[in-house]
Amino acid sequence: MSFQLEMDRSAKKTGSNIVLALDLPPDQPSRLLSKSIKTLEMVHTYLCAVKMNRQLVLPLGLYDGVQQIVKWTHDQGLPIIMDCKINDVGHTNRAIAEHYYKAGFDAVTANPFVGWDGGLQPVFKTAKQMHRGVILLVYMSHKGAEEGYGQTVQEPKTERRIHQYVVFAKKALSWNADGAVVGATYPEKIREIHAILKNQVPIYSPGVGAQGGSIEAAITAGARYLIVGRSITFAENPVEAAKFIRDTANQFLKEQ
Amino acid sequence: MSFQLEMDRSAKKTGSNIVLALDLPPDQPSRLLSKSIKTLEMVHTYLCAVKMNRQLVLPLGLYDGVQQIVKWTHDQGLPIIMDCKINDVGHTNRAIAEHYYKAGFDAVTANPFVGWDGGLQPVFKTAKQMHRGVILLVYMSHKGAEEGYGQTVQEPKTERRIHQYVVFAKKALSWNADGAVVGATYPEKIREIHAILKNQVPIYSPGVGAQGGSIEAAITAGARYLIVGRSITFAENPVEAAKFIRDTANQFLKEQ
Repeated sequence: MSFQLEMDRSAKKTGSNIVLALDLPPDQPSRLLSKSIKTLEMVHTYLCAVKMNRQLVLPLGLYDGVQQIVKWTHDQGLPIIMDCKINDVGHTNRAIAEHYYKAGFDAVTANPFVGWDGGLQPVFKTAKQMHRGVILLVYMSHKGAEEGYGQTVQEPKTERRIHQYVVFAKKALSWNADGAVVGATYPEKIREIHAILKNQVPIYSPGVGAQGGSIEAAITAGARYLIVGRSITFAENPVEAAKFIRDTANQFLKEQ
Repeated sequence: MSFQLEMDRSAKKTGSNIVLALDLPPDQPSRLLSKSIKTLEMVHTYLCAVKMNRQLVLPLGLYDGVQQIVKWTHDQGLPIIMDCKINDVGHTNRAIAEHYYKAGFDAVTANPFVGWDGGLQPVFKTAKQMHRGVILLVYMSHKGAEEGYGQTVQEPKTERRIHQYVVFAKKALSWNADGAVVGATYPEKIREIHAILKNQVPIYSPGVGAQGGSIEAAITAGARYLIVGRSITFAENPVEAAKFIRDTANQFLKEQ
């Protein structure tokens, strides 16, 4: 089963399109691990998947604490994504992807800026061999994203001026990516990118809440999944926050 | 002392401008650790610094095996660079940089594509606070680099068409980066980028040997340091390979 299908089934089964971003603030490794599990215990019924990033991998160790969180997540029947934003040369990219897949992650994120040949080709090849997913960054959620993702570039074949994120969305289609990340802080970009990707490549959207993105704007523009971190993990009541975000997203998803 | 000055002194003291890229092929963690130390024991006298990447961090663990290698390298008086190619949002980037600096790394690499605001600004701030370095990717060594680093973009202010790597070289200057990575496989790009950076930001050039780059071409075009991995680590005689590469580089550096 492809990662895209796995996510589709998970969303249907759980009745949620929320991916929890487990980006906890710096702390002692043992406390980070117990906080991660405690957070998941509280909110996992409101999620369709979990996303982890380097805030946990570096202090906990991949084949140590991180693998415990991966196992816990899988035990609840949820997929887990490693947000490693791969952007190195091919043999390093392959080693990174292989390690995360071996540790149990169902998908990795990668930056299409690095290109195909000697860049992301080995990542897509490894993903295919190990039946896992690759999600491409198409437009990130922070302000500085406009410098790179938002810049105007020359399309090599036509020499037309187009936006960088349009080039990346087209790569997501031609490389058969399992998902595209587009920041909820830029709903007009979600709409434009969704018009290219249609329903072939689902949009994952980080940035609602803490970063200022609106759930309604992101979903109505075409985001399929919301990646939510601090709006849940930093909430006074993470359970209520997770339930509220799930329900709000579901309301607008139904209207699509 | 700034990282740039630290590298300058190390090169003068060791009589070498070679940075060893410790990117060993996948293996058991204990064997990877012993191979790393064994390789360093053999060749460290021919180096001015060491560069590590995720091929070691993921299996060995940052605060475990990796820190042993960092300590070993420092005990020989050599700086060590973490090639983590930072390209995430600000709070994650800061966490990544802080972890690597805390583990002892003297510098990290970062991708300027991510932009400043909410992107690399927190990395440069952390580097300044902890007296460490940031090296920016300006043109990578693999073939697919032309898709991103080599593309033509529109300069926001002037609307002129310029190359992406020219934009990145200018950012390296204005952000006060401690170094710029430009692949030895593209000597004409080194020359063009060196003309922008002059001697304010030294060029680190990977890709000689295994990837096809020439030492002479890279150095005469303006590279200050050569990052060499497989041409040393995979050589039948790593000591002779390291000595030969150091001496060849020195010969052309003298002619500059």
